[in-house]
Amino acid sequence: MSFSFRRFIFGSPLPTWREMHERLPKILALPIFASDALSSVAYATEEILRVLILASMSAIQFPYVIYISIAIVILLAIVVTSYRQTIHAYPSGGGAYIVAKDNLGPTAGLIAGSALTIDYTLTVAVSTAAGVAAIISAWPQFSPYREAMCLGFVFIVTVGNLRGARESGLIFALPTYAFITAALGLIGFGLYREFTEGLKIEHSVVIKQTHDLTLFLILRAFSGGCTAMTGTEAISNAVQAFKPPEAKNASTTLTWMAAILGTMFLGISYLAWRTGVIPSGDETVLSQITRAMFGTTKYYYFVQIATMSILVLAANTSFAGFPRLASIMARDRYLPRQLYNVGDRLVFSNGIIILAMLASLLIVVFKGDTHALIPLYAIGVFLSFTLSQAGMLKRFRMRRERGWKRGAVISGIGAFLTGLVTLIFAWTKFLEGAWVVILLIPGFVYIFSKIHEHYIQLGNQLRLTPEDAFEPVNNVILVLTPSVHRGVKRALEYTKTLSSDVRAIHVETDPVDTAIMEQRWEQWGGGIPLIILESQYRSLVKPVLEYLQEVKREHKNTIITVIIPEFVPTKWWHKLLHNQSGILLKFALLFQRDVVTSNLRYYLDK
Amino acid sequence: MSFSFRRFIFGSPLPTWREMHERLPKILALPIFASDALSSVAYATEEILRVLILASMSAIQFPYVIYISIAIVILLAIVVTSYRQTIHAYPSGGGAYIVAKDNLGPTAGLIAGSALTIDYTLTVAVSTAAGVAAIISAWPQFSPYREAMCLGFVFIVTVGNLRGARESGLIFALPTYAFITAALGLIGFGLYREFTEGLKIEHSVVIKQTHDLTLFLILRAFSGGCTAMTGTEAISNAVQAFKPPEAKNASTTLTWMAAILGTMFLGISYLAWRTGVIPSGDETVLSQITRAMFGTTKYYYFVQIATMSILVLAANTSFAGFPRLASIMARDRYLPRQLYNVGDRLVFSNGIIILAMLASLLIVVFKGDTHALIPLYAIGVFLSFTLSQAGMLKRFRMRRERGWKRGAVISGIGAFLTGLVTLIFAWTKFLEGAWVVILLIPGFVYIFSKIHEHYIQLGNQLRLTPEDAFEPVNNVILVLTPSVHRGVKRALEYTKTLSSDVRAIHVETDPVDTAIMEQRWEQWGGGIPLIILESQYRSLVKPVLEYLQEVKREHKNTIITVIIPEFVPTKWWHKLLHNQSGILLKFALLFQRDVVTSNLRYYLDK
Repeated sequence: MSFSFRRFIFGSPLPTWREMHERLPKILALPIFASDALSSVAYATEEILRVLILASMSAIQFPYVIYISIAIVILLAIVVTSYRQTIHAYPSGGGAYIVAKDNLGPTAGLIAGSALTIDYTLTVAVSTAAGVAAIISAWPQFSPYREAMCLGFVFIVTVGNLRGARESGLIFALPTYAFITAALGLIGFGLYREFTEGLKIEHSVVIKQTHDLTLFLILRAFSGGCTAMTGTEAISNAVQAFKPPEAKNASTTLTWMAAILGTMFLGISYLAWRTGVIPSGDETVLSQITRAMFGTTKYYYFVQIATMSILVLAANTSFAGFPRLASIMARDRYLPRQLYNVGDRLVFSNGIIILAMLASLLIVVFKGDTHALIPLYAIGVFLSFTLSQAGMLKRFRMRRERGWKRGAVISGIGAFLTGLVTLIFAWTKFLEGAWVVILLIPGFVYIFSKIHEHYIQLGNQLRLTPEDAFEPVNNVILVLTPSVHRGVKRALEYTKTLSSDVRAIHVETDPVDTAIMEQRWEQWGGGIPLIILESQYRSLVKPVLEYLQEVKREHKNTIITVIIPEFVPTKWWHKLLHNQSGILLKFALLFQRDVVTSNLRYYLDK
Repeated sequence: MSFSFRRFIFGSPLPTWREMHERLPKILALPIFASDALSSVAYATEEILRVLILASMSAIQFPYVIYISIAIVILLAIVVTSYRQTIHAYPSGGGAYIVAKDNLGPTAGLIAGSALTIDYTLTVAVSTAAGVAAIISAWPQFSPYREAMCLGFVFIVTVGNLRGARESGLIFALPTYAFITAALGLIGFGLYREFTEGLKIEHSVVIKQTHDLTLFLILRAFSGGCTAMTGTEAISNAVQAFKPPEAKNASTTLTWMAAILGTMFLGISYLAWRTGVIPSGDETVLSQITRAMFGTTKYYYFVQIATMSILVLAANTSFAGFPRLASIMARDRYLPRQLYNVGDRLVFSNGIIILAMLASLLIVVFKGDTHALIPLYAIGVFLSFTLSQAGMLKRFRMRRERGWKRGAVISGIGAFLTGLVTLIFAWTKFLEGAWVVILLIPGFVYIFSKIHEHYIQLGNQLRLTPEDAFEPVNNVILVLTPSVHRGVKRALEYTKTLSSDVRAIHVETDPVDTAIMEQRWEQWGGGIPLIILESQYRSLVKPVLEYLQEVKREHKNTIITVIIPEFVPTKWWHKLLHNQSGILLKFALLFQRDVVTSNLRYYLDK
C-alpha cells in the first residue's frame, strides 16, 4: 500500500537507461534554470525604491532608480560574459563550488559551497514570499494567510520536483513565458503611452525626509537592486541537464536569459520612475505600476497571476540546482553520501527534501516577509560570483590557452566588481541581517570539513592492504533456551550443522523447571549440550553476558553467535502477551564486540 | 547511569532467597492489608447522610443513620466469619477469584476476577480522593489543586510499592495506628461529653425536603454505607504474605480488623447523628464532627492528617492485592504472562504500574471527586463477596468434612445477603454509574477468555510430541557485499566455516564498479563465490528478495541466513553520514519465512 501511494504521488520509478532522455532542450531549460533570475525583476526595483524613499520624495522624482538600474545591468552583462567562459571551461557543470575548488583550492570551494547553499535556501523562501505578496496585492483579503500560502507553495513545488525533471519542465514553461509576455506587454504599453500622451507623475502621499541622500544610502539602494542578479549562476551549475552540445546550448540560454532580464528590469524601473509609485506595505511596486497603466482590469490580474506563478516556480531553480550541488559535494565527501544518490525518479530526492525543510523554516521564522529576508539574500550570491570568477582568472593565467588574456581580463573585471559589491553588501546590510550569513559561512565550512575528515578516516580504516590475510574465525553458537518447545527445536536444527560448537543456554529461574527441562533435553536436544546459567536476581541479561565473557576466554579470534528463538503470532495483540526479555537481551548484546545476534522466527498458524 | 538511577528510586534488587524474610508479622500486616477497610469509615457515614438529606431534616434528626450502620456492621460480622472459613480452606491465598474458579468453574472465577480488578482500581481512586478531601476540609485554600494532589499521592504510593513489601509495612504502620488512635479518641471524648453534659443538636441550615423517605431511598442510603465494607477481602487474598502459621495469623488479623472497623463506624455514625452535621460540598462529615467536639484545635488537625494519611495509604491495599491477583490470573493464563513475574524487588512491578495508570485515569476523568466515584465502587466488591461465599457453600457441600454443616450455613447466609446487597446496589445506583461496572465486567471476562484461548493454542502449537523428530536443516549463507573492504572481509571470515554454502551477493548499481570488484575479489574473497544481482531501479531490496526465492527453490528444508556487514562509528553523528539501506533490507526480510538476518559489526577506531 505504501509503495503504491508513493507511486501515485511521485510517479513510477524510472530505470537508469532513461536518464539520457531526461535531458532538456533550451526552450524547457530556460524556464527551469532561469525562472529565478527572471522573476527577480518583480522585487528588485522595489528594493531600490524602498531605500531611496528613506531620503526624500525628490530622490524618487529624480531618476536615481534609473541610474542604479543601468549600473546593475552593466554588472549583469559582465558577469554573464564571464559565466559563458565558465560554461565552456566546465561543460560537465561548473558551479562556483567546482570552479573555486579546482583553481583556488578546497577551502575556497567550501566557502563557495556554503554561500551557494545559503543562497539556494533563500531563493526558495524569498521567491515564494514575493509570489504570495503579488497575490495579496491583488486580493488583500488573503493577507492573514501569508505564511500558510508560502508553505503551501513550497510543498507543491517540492512534490513536483520529486516527480522528476522532465515533468517539471512542462509545468514550469507556461508560467515563465506568461510572465515574460506580461512584463514586456506592460513595458511596451507604458512606452507607447509615454510617447503618445506622456506619463503623468502623481503623488498622493507626502513622505517626510528622514535621511540625507548619502553615498551609503545610494550604495544600499544599489545593493537592494542587485537582487535582480540572483539566480544568474544556475545555468552554469546545470550544464549536464542540457541536450548535447551541452556547453553551447547552456551558453546560448544564459545569453537569452540576460537579455530578457536586463530589458525587463530597465523597463520596470523606468515605469516606476515615470509613474512615481511609492513602495507601501500592502501592495507591491509592480502591482502599483500595472494598476497605474491599466487600472484594475483583466490585464492587471493577468500580470499579478503571472508574477505569482513565475515567483513561486522560481523556487524551482533551487530545487533543480541545490540537489545537483549537494550531489557533487557528496561525491567529494563534504556532504553525507545519501545526497549523492539518484532517487528512483532520477532526481536527487534527499537534497530536494532537505531544501524544502530549510526554506520552510526560514518562512516560518521571517513570517513570509520578502523584505525581511532580502538582506540575507544576495551576499551569498555575490560571494560565489566572486570566487567563481577569481577561479576562472587563475585558470586562464595557469593554462595560458589561446585567447587567455581576453578571458582573464573579463573574469578579472567580473571578480573585482562582484567582490566590491560583496563588500558593499556586507557594509550596507550588516545590521539588517547580513551578519547572520557572515557567521553561517564559516560554520558550514567547518561542518563540511569534519564530514570530509570522517570519510577519509573511514576509507583508511576499511581499505584492504596486502597484509590483510583471510583468516577464518572460530565460531561458537549459543541458542537461548527458555524451555523445550517446537520453536527451540527449530533453532537447534538450524544451528546443528552451522558449527561444531553449538550450546543451548538456559537461564535458571526455578530449579524445579530445570530438572524437568534436562529430562526433556535427552529426547529433543539433538545431542547439543545444555548449559544451565544460574540467575540470582531473576535477570536474563546478566548471566548471559557473564557466560559470553567465559566463552571468549576459551579461544582466540572467536565470534559468538547468539540465536534467540521467537514465535510470530497471527494477531498483533498476541505480541503483548509474551515476555519481551529477548528484546532486552538483544539490545544489551548490541554493545558486545565479536557477538552476532539473530532471531530465529517460528511462525504460528493461529 | 539508568541502572543506578533505578536503584536509587527503588532500592537494590533482592535475591530470591530473601523472599521468606519479607513475610509480615500481624502487627505490620494489619496496616498493609486492612488500611483500606479501616479507612472507609472516613466516608461511609457521610455517604449514608448524603442520601438521607435528600428526604428531609427529620431523616437526619431521627436515628436512621444508626439503624443503617448497625445493619451494615451485622453484615460485616457475617461476611468476616465467612471469610475466616475461606482463609483456613485456602491457606495459600483464597481470593474470590480462586474460590469461585475452584468451586463454581472458570466463568464464575473470571467474573470474580473482573469484579476484583475494577474494585482494586476504584479503591486507589476513591481512597486518594477522600484523603485529599480531608486535607481540603482543613485547608480550603488547596481546593483548586484537588486533582493534582490525588495524582501526586498515587505517584508516591506507587514508588513506595515498587521499593518492596517490607518497607511498605513500616511506612504504613504509623498512619494506620495514628488514625485508629485519633478516631477512637474522638469517639471516646464524644461519649464522655454525651454522658456528662449531653450533646446538643444544632442546625444552622434548613434543608428543603425534595424526596419522600421511601424504601428506595433507605436502601440507597444503605448502599452508600456499605462502602464501609470495601477492602474486607484483602486479607484472605494475601494469606501467603503472613508469617507462618499463615492461615491462623491471617484469620486473627481479619477478626481484629472487623472489630476495630465496626467500633469506629458505629461510633462515628452515632456522633454524626448526635451532633446533627449536614454533609456539604466543602467539608467532610468527619471534619465537621471533629470540629463540633474539639473546635479547630491541634487535635482537630491531628484527626484530619491521620485521616488523610490512612486514606492515601489505603490505596496501598490495592497495590499489595492487585498484583497478587494479576499474578495468579496470569499463572492460569487469563492475563499476560509478564504479570506473573516477580520484579527485582520481589514485588509484582508490572501489576503495580498498570494499577497506578488505571487509577490515575479514573482520577482525571472524575476530577478527584469521591462522591462521583463511589457509585461505581462497591458493586464489584459485593459481587466478589457473593461469588466467594457461594463457592465456599458449594465446597462445604461437596467435601462434607467435619463441621461442614455449620460452615455451609454461615457461607450460605453470607452469600445470600451479599448477593441481595449486590442487587440493591445495581438497582439503587444504576443511573449514577453502576451501569458502567455492569458493562465492564462481561467485557473483562471476554478479554480474559481470549487471552486464555491464545495461550492454550500457543501451547498446542509449540508442544513437542513423539512424532517431532530432530531434522537438521540445510543452511545457505548470503553475505551482502556492497564493496570489498575490511568490514566485508570480516563477515566472510565469520561465515567461511559456518556453512559449506556461503555466497557473497552484490547488487550492481554501476557495471564499472562491478568489474573492479570482481578483480579485488580474487585477492580477498577467500574463495567464496561472488554473485552479482542486477538492479534496474537502483533498489537494494527487490533483487535480494528475488534471489532469496531462487535459493529457496534449490533445496528443501533450507534456512537462508543473510549477513549484513555494518561498521560502528565512534561518534553518534557519523551514523548520519552512512546509507541506511541495510535497515530497509533487514525490515523487508522480517516478513520472509525461513530467513534469518544478522548484522556483523565492524568497530572503527576513530
